[in-house]
Amino acid sequence: MRAVDIIMKKRDGHELSREELAFIVNGYVSSEIPEYQISSWLMAVFFRGMSFRETADLTDLMLRSGSVMNLSGLAGPFVDKHSTGGVGDKVSLVLAPIAAACGIKVPMMSGRALGHTGGTLDKLESIPGYTTRLDEASFREFIGRDGFAMTGQTDAIVPADKKLYSLRDVTGTVESVPLITASILSKKVAEGADALVFDVKSGPGAFMKTEEDAERLATSLVRTGQAMGKRIVGVITDMTEPLGDKVGNFLEVEESIDCLKGGGPADMMEVTYRLTSWMLVAGGVAKDIAQAETMCREAVSSGKAYELFLRNVRNQGGDAEKMQALYGNWRSRYSRELKAPRTGYVASIDAYKIGLAGVYLGVGRDRTTDPVQPDVGFIFKARKGAKVGEGDLVATVYGKDDASLDAAWPLISGSLTVSDNKPVTSPLIIKEITAL
Amino acid sequence: MRAVDIIMKKRDGHELSREELAFIVNGYVSSEIPEYQISSWLMAVFFRGMSFRETADLTDLMLRSGSVMNLSGLAGPFVDKHSTGGVGDKVSLVLAPIAAACGIKVPMMSGRALGHTGGTLDKLESIPGYTTRLDEASFREFIGRDGFAMTGQTDAIVPADKKLYSLRDVTGTVESVPLITASILSKKVAEGADALVFDVKSGPGAFMKTEEDAERLATSLVRTGQAMGKRIVGVITDMTEPLGDKVGNFLEVEESIDCLKGGGPADMMEVTYRLTSWMLVAGGVAKDIAQAETMCREAVSSGKAYELFLRNVRNQGGDAEKMQALYGNWRSRYSRELKAPRTGYVASIDAYKIGLAGVYLGVGRDRTTDPVQPDVGFIFKARKGAKVGEGDLVATVYGKDDASLDAAWPLISGSLTVSDNKPVTSPLIIKEITAL
Repeated sequence: MRAVDIIMKKRDGHELSREELAFIVNGYVSSEIPEYQISSWLMAVFFRGMSFRETADLTDLMLRSGSVMNLSGLAGPFVDKHSTGGVGDKVSLVLAPIAAACGIKVPMMSGRALGHTGGTLDKLESIPGYTTRLDEASFREFIGRDGFAMTGQTDAIVPADKKLYSLRDVTGTVESVPLITASILSKKVAEGADALVFDVKSGPGAFMKTEEDAERLATSLVRTGQAMGKRIVGVITDMTEPLGDKVGNFLEVEESIDCLKGGGPADMMEVTYRLTSWMLVAGGVAKDIAQAETMCREAVSSGKAYELFLRNVRNQGGDAEKMQALYGNWRSRYSRELKAPRTGYVASIDAYKIGLAGVYLGVGRDRTTDPVQPDVGFIFKARKGAKVGEGDLVATVYGKDDASLDAAWPLISGSLTVSDNKPVTSPLIIKEITAL
Repeated sequence: MRAVDIIMKKRDGHELSREELAFIVNGYVSSEIPEYQISSWLMAVFFRGMSFRETADLTDLMLRSGSVMNLSGLAGPFVDKHSTGGVGDKVSLVLAPIAAACGIKVPMMSGRALGHTGGTLDKLESIPGYTTRLDEASFREFIGRDGFAMTGQTDAIVPADKKLYSLRDVTGTVESVPLITASILSKKVAEGADALVFDVKSGPGAFMKTEEDAERLATSLVRTGQAMGKRIVGVITDMTEPLGDKVGNFLEVEESIDCLKGGGPADMMEVTYRLTSWMLVAGGVAKDIAQAETMCREAVSSGKAYELFLRNVRNQGGDAEKMQALYGNWRSRYSRELKAPRTGYVASIDAYKIGLAGVYLGVGRDRTTDPVQPDVGFIFKARKGAKVGEGDLVATVYGKDDASLDAAWPLISGSLTVSDNKPVTSPLIIKEITAL
């Protein structure tokens, strides 16, 4: 077998066999195939795509490049959720304890903020003492005892993805549905979950800017996961406006606490309940989505979910008392107010601009090695549809320093549109694709 | 400027500016841009193509990566011909002396046999003593005095092409019309020609298998060359059958002598006269193709072209007497006869299979570093359209040893089709595209 023949086969639009894909993936991981052949193959995949069978083989081969989480000996069902990333998307922090309270085991491995999107690990690490570097024994122990644990991806998990992603990043081959699918799915399957729920964000604040692209990715994730023998649900949710009232790191921990205590914003709760309900259905602990949602609401109203959240904070080294004491008080001293430029209705707050502004403020980062700040971000007082008078407070913005606020301000003021008419509300849950 | 942005721009179907192309070409030549970015860019070009403007800029930038032949001080017109490669294609050996006899200066740089196609340099080097490694002073001197010289491409000419071609070869990006155009044209323009005639071969024995692909390449060569200020003619010729009666290295020298002495096969003379005539028109020494052809025929019948051929042999170190003594006698002792399997008409002799068989015999090579043999190849006694009886001799085949004949034989016997009906003759000159 020669790499160049496999490249040309894909270039000419043919389906690659598992053996051919194995030759590419294993040859790349072992550095026997040079990067210049891998990158031209990646570009050919970008243009020609892959069948669900090819994508499933690629995912499985990538998965086998490293170790997988060993959950044997623990009782399931193991179900996780993955979001393609958005602005203000703190759903994981709320969903995991609710699902755990309903009998699901959630072996959650999350990512970090990058570009305009936030990262669950960065939010959790804003809790004093909290660590997201768990060894396998602790991860198993916490899941077995309290139903969930939150960790980062270790180097041993899918090394092929790390290597491939770095190459895709510099060769213009990131935006390929089968490659995105294999990257996401290989890591999720490596967690040992039996079922997975994907939140595919769609809109200006998402990676997939159009509903069409989001649906293509959701379909690919669901069909490929199905080909790998998993139960899968893909939920396409709107990411035009930031999710919830708070965007930041510790600010989003605060809002997660609100949600778990039953006082979360309506949009956050709608998305969280829907995704968690699908986890319950996919995990087989609820017979349908209606029963599942009732169970989720009960987990919140009973206080059980919040109790599990606090247990998780303590499990992972966090100081739950300090966290509660900091609630509402931990704010950068550099702040500025976004005010309505005129009387009317908030027609939109552009999630993408807010996300980009967050990079300046210290919420997110441009490079994976840059630090983030716990005490910066946005608190929105008026969101889409709210009636505002000229000069009314729309948001308080916290930055790491004055310069960051200066740099972010054109994006922040440009994110707000005020109109004469009340804007039409659009659904948050756009579409659902299931393979159960 | 970042390479990844340029890759994505091309990937998304946009035209690159000269500055962006310069960033890629110069960055690659200086090794500042890694090969994995160049190869993904090449694959994006494969899928998206290039405008003639982009192709002309790429060609010019590649050209400027090295030195160009300095013909200043010599009187023109300088016109060269380039063939995309075929089987039995010895046109250059006949065309250069005819054109020179008609007042054209031909600064010819040729290539070597590779895969199923033959190479002018290998054919010339089968003449005892003949060298194709000329220094610039000798090249200039021979052209100035005798109208033409035949050399190989030096390392100083278009180094960007050598580097890019090696990468294309292993990344599945050879078959791209703009990249082929820039590769061919950069080397031809570096020779210092004012006008160029391209013989774009079409058919199973050619690089371009279909007329459509050949026309696409011919159009690209003509329009790109025109954008670079050159007078250009693209002639699409058929390469379904081998050209002429002899295929080999010294065997093709023999047939070239026949052609120059006025006794060449009709197909060889038709293609040679047509291409040479266009050189005369493009060089401005004939007012039209009819006048040019009369001049070409006169150059042969007067013996002037053959005289110039002998002078060139001597100029380049060849032993013209020994060459003439070897004529008809220099044959490998390993030979075999291809006979008609039944009575009928020769319906076709597959040029591609003959070319591939030639690699086994020692006519051609698979890797540029493999040696070739002077005394091997094919002498056809019956060609397409000939009436044959069962067991009649169709060709004598010479190989470097018995094993090579054994290995080549399935291709050779498979190349011959005999049918009951006389086959329809198809035109050799398929189409002409001019920018004069």
